[in-house]
Amino acid sequence: MRLRHVNPLDYDRVLGVVDGWWGGRAMSARLSHVFFSHFAPTSFVLESDAELIGFLLGFLSQAHPDEAYVHFVGVHPDFRRLGLGRRLYERFFMAAQMNGRRYVRSITSPSNTLSIAFHRSMGFELLHGDVLIDGVPVWFDYAGAGGHRVVFRREIGGADAATDGNGGRLRLQDGMGKALAF
Amino acid sequence: MRLRHVNPLDYDRVLGVVDGWWGGRAMSARLSHVFFSHFAPTSFVLESDAELIGFLLGFLSQAHPDEAYVHFVGVHPDFRRLGLGRRLYERFFMAAQMNGRRYVRSITSPSNTLSIAFHRSMGFELLHGDVLIDGVPVWFDYAGAGGHRVVFRREIGGADAATDGNGGRLRLQDGMGKALAF
Repeated sequence: MRLRHVNPLDYDRVLGVVDGWWGGRAMSARLSHVFFSHFAPTSFVLESDAELIGFLLGFLSQAHPDEAYVHFVGVHPDFRRLGLGRRLYERFFMAAQMNGRRYVRSITSPSNTLSIAFHRSMGFELLHGDVLIDGVPVWFDYAGAGGHRVVFRREIGGADAATDGNGGRLRLQDGMGKALAF
Repeated sequence: MRLRHVNPLDYDRVLGVVDGWWGGRAMSARLSHVFFSHFAPTSFVLESDAELIGFLLGFLSQAHPDEAYVHFVGVHPDFRRLGLGRRLYERFFMAAQMNGRRYVRSITSPSNTLSIAFHRSMGFELLHGDVLIDGVPVWFDYAGAGGHRVVFRREIGGADAATDGNGGRLRLQDGMGKALAF
């Protein structure tokens, strides 16, 4: 298995699998090629032999200099529940930390209970929203009208923590480690 | 008329107009809320009274530290040919320059002759592609299979030029200054 930075040629490969990984939802329109060129330092693919089995597209926030943001993550349906989502996130945490970021932020829709469980298991806190629904804080209209979202944030340590590389604050608690196409 | 940085509330407003400005094309799926939060320092809206009449969404490349990238630009159909596209680009050039970027990059599809003319008038060079079509260099499959693109780049000066603010290398040549929803 190989975990590496994306390159522009990966765009077509991800485009070719993403709707299928999401159970037929039209996700490909949301996938911009800019992640494969301009955000390659914080975007990754996982391959098993030549096959694409996972990806994470993220960036360093340019409005919030202490934050990095996970934009799009998917794992091949046949390779779920193996901890690959966790591996992708841990690699992203490291990239964010090396760039002096203290927090990683991500969002999901309130109905995506697996994504919520995954982020909790990865040590993300759920930021206070407008309302609690089944114990989950929800931000109304976060991603446009009707785009209610759960907002996650995880502290990963800042520039100082990055100096000791992989260790220190990057140690993760045990958890279910589900890998999801959310 | 007011030219200002985007804020998260602008996302819904742009979402509400973008398909219409593109003549009915479904552009809204391509519009991510992250530009309105995490890329606000290099993204702008133009308003006339309270009405939204233009926007430019861009970012600083994280893979190419000397580049900034224009991702999405639109001008209200009733307000075209007034130089608003030029104003948005000039504001973006300034933001890119203040962040030490030397080049601004953008792309368009080979069939968008107005966008090609606009970028030429704004001093962009057309980078050498795979083939020349009607004198225009085209990159095959730039944005995925079948996503042929014309690639523009403009030098705006680097960190040193930014120190003298608005002047210096930011002076633009005269041109047609068309404002387009491309």
